[in-house]
Amino acid sequence: MTYCVGIEVDEGLVFAADTRTNASLDDVRVHRKLHVFEYPGQAVFALMSAGNLATTQLAISKLQRDADDPDAPRSLRSFKHLFEVAEYVGEVLVSSQVKLSDQSQHSGVSVQSTLILGGQIAGERPGLYMIYPLGNAIATSPETPYLQIGESKYGKPILDRIIRPEMQLEDAARTALVSLDSTIRSNLSVGMPIDVALIRRNDLRVTERLRLEADTPLYSEIHDTWSRKLEHAVRTLPRFPWEPAMTSESETDNRGNLPPLPPRRVPARRDPEDQSSQQ
Amino acid sequence: MTYCVGIEVDEGLVFAADTRTNASLDDVRVHRKLHVFEYPGQAVFALMSAGNLATTQLAISKLQRDADDPDAPRSLRSFKHLFEVAEYVGEVLVSSQVKLSDQSQHSGVSVQSTLILGGQIAGERPGLYMIYPLGNAIATSPETPYLQIGESKYGKPILDRIIRPEMQLEDAARTALVSLDSTIRSNLSVGMPIDVALIRRNDLRVTERLRLEADTPLYSEIHDTWSRKLEHAVRTLPRFPWEPAMTSESETDNRGNLPPLPPRRVPARRDPEDQSSQQ
Repeated sequence: MTYCVGIEVDEGLVFAADTRTNASLDDVRVHRKLHVFEYPGQAVFALMSAGNLATTQLAISKLQRDADDPDAPRSLRSFKHLFEVAEYVGEVLVSSQVKLSDQSQHSGVSVQSTLILGGQIAGERPGLYMIYPLGNAIATSPETPYLQIGESKYGKPILDRIIRPEMQLEDAARTALVSLDSTIRSNLSVGMPIDVALIRRNDLRVTERLRLEADTPLYSEIHDTWSRKLEHAVRTLPRFPWEPAMTSESETDNRGNLPPLPPRRVPARRDPEDQSSQQ
Repeated sequence: MTYCVGIEVDEGLVFAADTRTNASLDDVRVHRKLHVFEYPGQAVFALMSAGNLATTQLAISKLQRDADDPDAPRSLRSFKHLFEVAEYVGEVLVSSQVKLSDQSQHSGVSVQSTLILGGQIAGERPGLYMIYPLGNAIATSPETPYLQIGESKYGKPILDRIIRPEMQLEDAARTALVSLDSTIRSNLSVGMPIDVALIRRNDLRVTERLRLEADTPLYSEIHDTWSRKLEHAVRTLPRFPWEPAMTSESETDNRGNLPPLPPRRVPARRDPEDQSSQQ
């Protein structure tokens, strides 16, 4: 599986994708799922993929070859509107699936892929589309300014709760990282490293681009502090009727620091006893 | 669908269940999925269910009838160990499924159900079990001290991140409510009201029991403040390399209050323009 999320806020676009692909539980690889096409000053596109890797690579390769060929009848560079680009990418996706499904060795394996396309063409505002295996596409809405592909359920609540068009681009990117981290933590089929790209409105290029490994300080700090922040948030939720009122001590202290976190696990010097779970 | 979560911490057990059942998108009802069997001083059990409602009701009814019948060869009251109760409940579940599947009008409909059973018998510590449709059961582990049934993915990350045996019973209950609220917000098939039960270790009765409606002050406060807390947590995560350092102003202020939350949606006085999403 895969997990990719694209977010559209007023300030621009955020793309975040994991890199794990697996044919089965014991055939796990790392492949890039976030692809960037940059034509500075003219247009910029980012594409993320979920589904059959061969289909995706065929489609990306076709898009790249068309864009590099000045004689190509149509390419990423030849459209004035992002919706037309989404239609074109959808056609390339469908033809890639058809080509692969015609080759009979793929029988029994789904050759379908789903894409998220985002970017900006000079003269237009940025946009974000989900392109389905049928080649059809939907845009974000102001009410739901994000799109997900792959293993999307674990990372959806954080997006539903806080993503909105007015938020800062970097805060949207931090939210995407938390959404990815939650999914990676709860599901084996989504894994590190994480690719991130930010396209700020009217930059017409990829503004920032990062690959985060598990031990990248930025990511490991997010990974480590998020649980502390959640735990603190849970502790300061409203009390139940039978509980004593919250003391100011149990809340944030005066300097705004979090209370010390008790150890998540007792150090396992000896094997936990068997009867600790069943009886 | 359904979403129920059971949590086992050192201080006791937490049970939280939604109440929405649906045969299709337009056949939605409210049914209790959290059932309590109390024998004060002797034993206490709570049972939550996901799956076929007729199966569940048949099984619960059988358990109740056996427990009320002093001549019943076996009942919830006749065992000394919780694992034996789990086996017995599993047998009742299997026989309920068999009875319903024999009645041919149920053909094509799954009659399976999955249960979470928790409780305590005098002389033992509390325990929590998941009972599968086959009648077999698993207990929690100290490493994963919670069990979920139904639409479990949305509410899993918060549990994975902060539930551990040492946490307070009420904090575990608050976490369960957040997990339920996240699922209800992101998935239509899980709905209010929410039933909650807490069994404190060695109380041998249901210590606290609540039904939370959307407008119950405790729940609506949790629902409203959680997004604010998450948003604040995202804003105070580590900065990206290109960002200026965080000002103390943008962090928690000196009294530990959250910064003001901008409006989630602009008041919709007029219809948003069509070109705001596609182009």
